[in-house]
Amino acid sequence: MSVTINDIAKRAKVSSATVSRVLNNSGYVKEETRQRIVVAIKEMNYTPSAIARSLSKCETNTIGVIVPDITNAYFGEIIKGVSERAERNNLNIILFNTDNYLEKEVRALKLLKEQRIKGIIMTPGFGEEKFNENYIKTINTLNIPIILVSADVKFTKLNGVFVDNIKGGFEATNLLIKEGHTKIGIMTGLLSSEPVMDRLEGYKKALKENDIDFCNKYVLYGDFKIDKAYELTKKLFEEKDRPTALVVCSNMMTMGVIKALKEDNKDIPRDLAIVGFDKIDFLDIVGLNITYMEDCPIELGRASMDMLVDIISSTEDDCVRRMIIAPQIVVKGSEKKI
Amino acid sequence: MSVTINDIAKRAKVSSATVSRVLNNSGYVKEETRQRIVVAIKEMNYTPSAIARSLSKCETNTIGVIVPDITNAYFGEIIKGVSERAERNNLNIILFNTDNYLEKEVRALKLLKEQRIKGIIMTPGFGEEKFNENYIKTINTLNIPIILVSADVKFTKLNGVFVDNIKGGFEATNLLIKEGHTKIGIMTGLLSSEPVMDRLEGYKKALKENDIDFCNKYVLYGDFKIDKAYELTKKLFEEKDRPTALVVCSNMMTMGVIKALKEDNKDIPRDLAIVGFDKIDFLDIVGLNITYMEDCPIELGRASMDMLVDIISSTEDDCVRRMIIAPQIVVKGSEKKI
Repeated sequence: MSVTINDIAKRAKVSSATVSRVLNNSGYVKEETRQRIVVAIKEMNYTPSAIARSLSKCETNTIGVIVPDITNAYFGEIIKGVSERAERNNLNIILFNTDNYLEKEVRALKLLKEQRIKGIIMTPGFGEEKFNENYIKTINTLNIPIILVSADVKFTKLNGVFVDNIKGGFEATNLLIKEGHTKIGIMTGLLSSEPVMDRLEGYKKALKENDIDFCNKYVLYGDFKIDKAYELTKKLFEEKDRPTALVVCSNMMTMGVIKALKEDNKDIPRDLAIVGFDKIDFLDIVGLNITYMEDCPIELGRASMDMLVDIISSTEDDCVRRMIIAPQIVVKGSEKKI
Repeated sequence: MSVTINDIAKRAKVSSATVSRVLNNSGYVKEETRQRIVVAIKEMNYTPSAIARSLSKCETNTIGVIVPDITNAYFGEIIKGVSERAERNNLNIILFNTDNYLEKEVRALKLLKEQRIKGIIMTPGFGEEKFNENYIKTINTLNIPIILVSADVKFTKLNGVFVDNIKGGFEATNLLIKEGHTKIGIMTGLLSSEPVMDRLEGYKKALKENDIDFCNKYVLYGDFKIDKAYELTKKLFEEKDRPTALVVCSNMMTMGVIKALKEDNKDIPRDLAIVGFDKIDFLDIVGLNITYMEDCPIELGRASMDMLVDIISSTEDDCVRRMIIAPQIVVKGSEKKI
């Protein structure tokens, strides 16, 4: 059980108000009494409560972090970046994992609001296609600084650190075009995901700028998961007219594509050139060198925490801050036209 | 800025004590006044502070979780398991990532103590070889229920959910012996890690039970990292008398071993049979079927949270609870003797 001021008071045979004066170093206390209280505090191993301190200031030294999937290393990297900077600013992190469920996101936001925290850093889940009144209302009535990281929320304008996914889609496609590919496909994730929509837009833009016709059947509609990507790739090779290169919009889907190709002894890039999104550490190790667009999630985490600290310490709070980081292309050879 | 009881009181033109009575549904308030206060609460979008509530109960609805590496999916799975059960019990999680630094672990423990949380779930880092007075004292004077998960702390006896790593090392080695291997090596992690010491013990036990002499030079001293494992494997193949099979004590080191073998076009298991520890999702996908001992970290997370809830709600608190989960062997073919 925790030791309270009352316990200290009882042991030191003084009133709790006197203990409080000693703890806060305010008001007069006889030196002898003070000594007795200090001894009691030490003997009882008392820690002044952060809760009591935060109540008087009406907020805690805590921020909330909400991610859609804690087992995905991408979000682990974001949290690592946030947590590095939080530590530097003496802030603690309350973590919520939503498993991509919108109700869990709403619940997390409401619980965090109750905690009187300093701010929230959140990667929303795959996002909402339709306007969801409860969700948007919860976000808009938070009255707590919120920073989105990596993915945006539709139908409202919030602070955030984002990746320029239009540029990402454009550069990935453009690299393949420069290699000589003209039949280029794209595997998207769920279209409710804003990053994916942007990557698709960048893809179309690159085709257009290079006078290559957009071909509807070269767009493969994935769901971010390995299995669906695997199926789509298998089906792709049943088609007569198929792309020679593929932009793949997430790390998990890249794995599914590789699985399907490996199983049928297809070669990358000879049978299908690939440019993926997000780093997959293990691929290099097993000798698969896949070119990809790099978000650098640890940097996104750091930048979002820096932005939050900036907003907390700022006196003006009426402008929405949005930082857009350009993704980097990491060329490994899987984009080649052979 | 957060709305306080005082703001409500001002708006409803009553005292804050009256607002408090309405919020807590205690004491008499005229119906008309009550209505005015309820309207003010709604208009000002007031949320009763969890801090204020927790102060009166002298603890928060929060637990602390400390992990050594948030970017490792193994700990992501543990947190996922903890967070599932925390949600069910209406508990929030304050997260600390220590990057395997002991000072960060001590700092996290001290900060959590200040927060008056209900309990702590912690995976200690690689552990301490030597008795560290400050560390052990911090843990022993917490006065908060603490549950270790997956790894133990030496020099003290704490609650925890652990894996039977002696059994793990034994079964891994025994499988290789049954396949006909007699020259079996082991790649350990840092010897300050208790799970690794136990796996080494299990390895020795299996050799002894099968009348195979323990050979010191078959023990490769790794550090859990890919690079060192890669180097050790390269060096291994320079030896004339070398093992035909290897027990590899962590997922990262398994990657390093595979990297070295792939680079030199060595075949698994023909050139070296392998039994690893911990699942590596991506390996199957790229067609590398590695036999491994499975911890099931999400289950460890769930069990540790269940144990914590049990301790919190229990009236007796003097017995140390330790649950040992047996690892499962997942056979994929890399253990074969060809």
